[in-house]
Amino acid sequence: MTTTDRHPDDPRWMARAIRRAAAVCPPPHPNPRVGCVLVRDGSVLAEAAHEQAGGPHAEAAALQAAGGAAHGATAYVTLEPCAHYGRTPPCARALIDAGVSRVVVGHRDPNPRVAGGGIAQLEAAGVAVTEGVLAADAEALNRGFLRRMAGGRPWVRVKLAASLDGRTAMASGESHWITSAAARRDVHRGRAEAAAVLTGVGTVRADDPRLDARDVEPAVPAERQPQRVVLDPRLTTPPHAALFQAPGPVLIGHAEYVNEARARALRSCGAELLPLPLQEGGLDLAAVLDALAAREINEVWVEAGPTLAGSWVRGGWADELIVYTAPHLMGDAARPLLALPGIETMAQRQPLAFSDVRRVGEEIRITARLV
Amino acid sequence: MTTTDRHPDDPRWMARAIRRAAAVCPPPHPNPRVGCVLVRDGSVLAEAAHEQAGGPHAEAAALQAAGGAAHGATAYVTLEPCAHYGRTPPCARALIDAGVSRVVVGHRDPNPRVAGGGIAQLEAAGVAVTEGVLAADAEALNRGFLRRMAGGRPWVRVKLAASLDGRTAMASGESHWITSAAARRDVHRGRAEAAAVLTGVGTVRADDPRLDARDVEPAVPAERQPQRVVLDPRLTTPPHAALFQAPGPVLIGHAEYVNEARARALRSCGAELLPLPLQEGGLDLAAVLDALAAREINEVWVEAGPTLAGSWVRGGWADELIVYTAPHLMGDAARPLLALPGIETMAQRQPLAFSDVRRVGEEIRITARLV
Repeated sequence: MTTTDRHPDDPRWMARAIRRAAAVCPPPHPNPRVGCVLVRDGSVLAEAAHEQAGGPHAEAAALQAAGGAAHGATAYVTLEPCAHYGRTPPCARALIDAGVSRVVVGHRDPNPRVAGGGIAQLEAAGVAVTEGVLAADAEALNRGFLRRMAGGRPWVRVKLAASLDGRTAMASGESHWITSAAARRDVHRGRAEAAAVLTGVGTVRADDPRLDARDVEPAVPAERQPQRVVLDPRLTTPPHAALFQAPGPVLIGHAEYVNEARARALRSCGAELLPLPLQEGGLDLAAVLDALAAREINEVWVEAGPTLAGSWVRGGWADELIVYTAPHLMGDAARPLLALPGIETMAQRQPLAFSDVRRVGEEIRITARLV
Repeated sequence: MTTTDRHPDDPRWMARAIRRAAAVCPPPHPNPRVGCVLVRDGSVLAEAAHEQAGGPHAEAAALQAAGGAAHGATAYVTLEPCAHYGRTPPCARALIDAGVSRVVVGHRDPNPRVAGGGIAQLEAAGVAVTEGVLAADAEALNRGFLRRMAGGRPWVRVKLAASLDGRTAMASGESHWITSAAARRDVHRGRAEAAAVLTGVGTVRADDPRLDARDVEPAVPAERQPQRVVLDPRLTTPPHAALFQAPGPVLIGHAEYVNEARARALRSCGAELLPLPLQEGGLDLAAVLDALAAREINEVWVEAGPTLAGSWVRGGWADELIVYTAPHLMGDAARPLLALPGIETMAQRQPLAFSDVRRVGEEIRITARLV
C-alpha cells in the first residue's frame, strides 16, 4: 500500500507528531488521539493535535496555522486522515485543498467510516502517500479506540499498588498509604487518560474514594472528568459516598432486582443506574464492557480490591496491569495482590509480558500485558 | 584531607579504575576489589586490577606494565594504597619508587593495618594525593569487605525469585522454573561474586541444588568456587545431595547435639561441620555470621525458602534483597515471598530502598536495601 518511497527523515517527524498527540490529556475520547506536523524543506511549518471531540482535527488545526505556506508541504499524521463528514469536514479533502504534496501516515483508521478511504481520496487527487511509519508507536496512542473499533469492547487497565512482597493491605484492611504521593499523582494521570474509572462497592465502602482525576497538570475540567463506574450488585453504595461530591458522572452497575428505595436515593445523588446480569457471584464483566462500549468508552481504568481486580484477570477481560511496587515488606499475613482461585500448578500460571518498567517517586511502576 | 586540587578529568579516570576492578569475577576475596589506572598527558599508560588474593595488587601490576614510563604519571586507585608488608610489598612504597607524582584515591582503606598510613607515606615522600574521587562508587565495589572491617560481619544478600504477585512456589511446592534461563545465569553471577552461598536444609531436601557458580564467563575454577553453607540444625542433609558432587567446600551449620552416625556420613562426603547455638527455633544467625567472618567471608549470598529467607530479614541480618520478578501471576494460594510473622499494621512494615531496577531476560531484577 506504500505508494511512495520513504524519506530518511520520516521517522523523526512522525515521532514528533506522536509526541504531540500523546501530550493531549485528557485524550479527545471517544475520538482517537491524533497528531499532525507539516514540514517543508526540513523545517516545521506548523503542528497540532486533536485536543477534544467536536474540536478541530489535528490536520485541520495544523493547516490553519500554516496558512498558504502548506502548499507543497509534507504532512505527517499519526492516523489516516478522515474522508467523511462527521462533526468536522473531511481532513483528506482539506489536505488536498491546501496543496499538500505528500502525506505520511502512521497507520490506517479501523473506523469503518474511514478504513482506507482517506488514503484513497488523497491518492486520487495526486497526493503521494506513505503508510506505516512508526506504526506500532502510533497505534499505542489509541489502544482503547483500536480495541473498540476492532473488537467492540474497551481496553482494560487494572491498577494495583503493592509492597515488594506483593501485598495490597494488612490483614485488618489497613492500607493507607502503600505508595508515596508521587505514585498517587501518577495514578491521577492514569485516571485522566482513561475514559472511565471503575471500582467495586467494597472499595467504595472501605476507602470512600472520589475516583476523579485530581492532582494533574493541567487540571481536568469537570465536564471532561472520567466516567466513574461502581459495580454494586445489591446497591449498597452509601448515598453520602465521596464519589457523589466529586465532579463527573457516576454509573452504578447492579443486579436486576434491587431495593427501589435505595435506587431512588442513589439516583437523587446524581447516579445513573444500570441493571446487569450476574455471573459467578458477581456482575457479568462482559456485559459491563458492552455497556461501556455502547457509551463509546475506549479505555477503562480499574481500581479495585484483590477480589474484583482478580475477576477481571481471571475472566480474561484485563489487558494490562499497572503495578506500583512500594519499597516495603508487608509480610505473608497481609492481603494478596489478586485473588486468583484455581491456579494450582505452574502450568496454570497466568503469563504476562512486561512492557514498561520505571521509577515513579520511591516506587517502581511495572506495566504488564496479559498474554 | 585532600592535599591537592582536583583535576576535571579525575572522575573519568577513577570511573575507569572502578570498572576495571568491578570486572574481576570472582572477586579477590578476602581482599577488596581494587583497580588502578596510570595516566600521563591525558593518556593511559597502564591499568590493572587486583585479580586474586596472593597475586599482585592493582598498583603493582599497573606499575610493572608501565615500566619506566610511570615516572611523573598520575595513579588513580580505587582504594588507598597499602603501607604494610602483607603477602606483597607495600604499594605506597612502589608508587614512590616508580616516581609517580600524584595519586588519586577513591576512598581510605578501613583495614586497621592501612587506615590512612598509605596516604601518609605518599605525602611524606612528596607525592601529591587527592582523596574521595567517586568515593561512593568505589566503596560499592567492596560492600562486604568494608562491612567486615567496620562491623566484624559479612554483607548479606538474599536472592529471591517470584511472580509479579510475589509468589515463590505453588502451594504444592512446585517451583521449577519461576524464572527464565537468563535470570538463572544472572544468579550464577551473583553466586560467583559472593564468597559464600548459604541455604537451608529444607531447600537442599526439596530442590537438591549444587549451589556452585556455573554458567558464568569466564568459568569459575574449582578452587575459587564460593564456600557453600547449609543451615541444618538436626543434620538431615542427605549424604547423596548434589551439593557434594559440585566443586568447592561445604560447611554444615548444626545444633550442638547431633546424631554421630549422620555427622560421620556427612564428613565422609567432604562436609565440614560447625556446631552453632539455637535461637527461636533455628540456628542463631548472628553466630552464623560471626563464624563466616572468622573465615574472612566478606559477602554471603542467601538462596533459601520463605521461612529461612524471612528469618534473615526479620532478624535484621539481611542487607539487601535481590528479587527476580517473573512475568507471571501464580495466585493467592501460592507460597509467599518471605515468611514475616508479627507484621500486623502498616507502621510495622519493613521499609526498603530500591537501589537498582533492571531487566534481566524476561524478568525484572529489583535490588532493595533494608533500611
